[in-house]
Amino acid sequence: MDATYITFCCTDTKAEPWLAGLRAAVPRALVDVWQPGAPQADYAVVWAPPQQFIDEQSRLKALFNIGAGVDGLLKLNLPPGMAVVRLDDAGMSVQMAEYVCHALIRHFREFDGYEADVAKGTWSYRKPRSRAECPVGIMGLGVLGQRVAQAVAQFDFPVRGWSRTPHPMPGVTGFAGESQFNDFLAGTRVLVNLLPLTAQTENILRRDTLQRLLPGGYLINVARGAHLVEADLIALIDSGHLAGATLDVFRTEPLPRAHPFWSHPRITITPHTSARTLREESIAQIAAKIARLRAGESPQALPGCVDPARGY
Amino acid sequence: MDATYITFCCTDTKAEPWLAGLRAAVPRALVDVWQPGAPQADYAVVWAPPQQFIDEQSRLKALFNIGAGVDGLLKLNLPPGMAVVRLDDAGMSVQMAEYVCHALIRHFREFDGYEADVAKGTWSYRKPRSRAECPVGIMGLGVLGQRVAQAVAQFDFPVRGWSRTPHPMPGVTGFAGESQFNDFLAGTRVLVNLLPLTAQTENILRRDTLQRLLPGGYLINVARGAHLVEADLIALIDSGHLAGATLDVFRTEPLPRAHPFWSHPRITITPHTSARTLREESIAQIAAKIARLRAGESPQALPGCVDPARGY
Repeated sequence: MDATYITFCCTDTKAEPWLAGLRAAVPRALVDVWQPGAPQADYAVVWAPPQQFIDEQSRLKALFNIGAGVDGLLKLNLPPGMAVVRLDDAGMSVQMAEYVCHALIRHFREFDGYEADVAKGTWSYRKPRSRAECPVGIMGLGVLGQRVAQAVAQFDFPVRGWSRTPHPMPGVTGFAGESQFNDFLAGTRVLVNLLPLTAQTENILRRDTLQRLLPGGYLINVARGAHLVEADLIALIDSGHLAGATLDVFRTEPLPRAHPFWSHPRITITPHTSARTLREESIAQIAAKIARLRAGESPQALPGCVDPARGY
Repeated sequence: MDATYITFCCTDTKAEPWLAGLRAAVPRALVDVWQPGAPQADYAVVWAPPQQFIDEQSRLKALFNIGAGVDGLLKLNLPPGMAVVRLDDAGMSVQMAEYVCHALIRHFREFDGYEADVAKGTWSYRKPRSRAECPVGIMGLGVLGQRVAQAVAQFDFPVRGWSRTPHPMPGVTGFAGESQFNDFLAGTRVLVNLLPLTAQTENILRRDTLQRLLPGGYLINVARGAHLVEADLIALIDSGHLAGATLDVFRTEPLPRAHPFWSHPRITITPHTSARTLREESIAQIAAKIARLRAGESPQALPGCVDPARGY
């Protein structure tokens, strides 16, 4: 077996620990940070690479994206047939389940309200909300969405799921495709977005969709900022139709300092931290996938292999 | 079958909806608020009744406590052999699971820190903590503790349980009795207290027990205020051995206005709201238990029947 050449091209990522980890995890691997003009590699580990990288590294056997979303990568001009593989869980789904459950429980149990009461020195009583009247609707039932749905169901909320194609899950009322989207929304109080960002899903959270939610609806967006028309959300909260939102992703990140989300009293924001790439888990997963490719498997057989036409 | 006389004696509880609910749920029931000198009832529904109530109603077939803890009731001078029945879940365990998971995730993921950053206008990065290095130890594995343990395990934390007698649970490393208490504490980073309050467990959370926790330990107390020596907790947090605490219960409730917990930066308090009695669920459960007693079952066969010698 020849040495394997892996090139590393990840924006906003400290390279050294990744290089060391990949060298240790992939037998006989040469692993280097990509430079313009570098020789052709067999595999690439990337996050937000420049178009020049793609243009120069055109004979890769696979491109491993160290995140769950490949929307940024697919906007580049990729050579036809280039195998793109995203992370498949790698410790992200449990983080998503945590993030969503924390935001959901905080809203449902009014822990933010209690905190404000305590800050004022008030020992308060708030009437418990009805769990049965708080159906949680999850958009996107891939690896992350399924884990989130299970976690939410465990707290006895009615759970609804919506996906492009049907994904039946025990304990989850399933809806699929455009034709069932309005029905899905109309019975949902807390909406959780975990969709991939594609041409079809961009701006899917806007006035005419969000206003179909049950009164007092609440949005948790952990997918991509471009799913949401931000001004529409603010208008629906300010009009009282929606109770509020927890947002981890934004059209521009970091969120510009003048953005109204920073100080809106009913919007909780976090700095894109819902599911962070965990280096050790990711390296182990990429190494295992490279081993399968070297053993002759096709990239299309790998979990997380992306269909560029579908967009995820 | 004769009419059943149910007397209702609940401090700090609006009686009317309970009376209406019990009348609807128990066939041929006469249900009234207790008054001094009232006739002998068959059953009583109580919360924090006065000693006079116990003295006068000495021939009850069962005393139903509308809470999970009976420590207050057992401090009264009860007639020997009086059957005391506490609520058995009745919608409380899911609330406990929510409360504990919210507090645990908030601490582990530093969502409180991110919120403080956002309030200052900072888009921050915090290094993710290691889940494997955050074992969660649960004290008390009754109905509530078991549900909490399951919920926590679902987020892939190592889970440890400690109880008076062994309660084996899949996915939970079990410890039992006084002899294993120190080992339990020594491997725990986040400690969750769900013990009943008895003479044996009062002040169980004090300097010499809490300081056995792993450095950076965190306390979540959702049982009773008298489990905790409050000054010891503050000292251990201020010395840096413990990272903080989330407390729902206090030695005096409402928490006195001058108490340092109100404003301690590393202590989150809530006004005894972790698991509220849900009226409909509780009435349904009490009615079902009365039906079993009327059908000739012994009170000791009912779930939640208390052993006064054991204290819960």
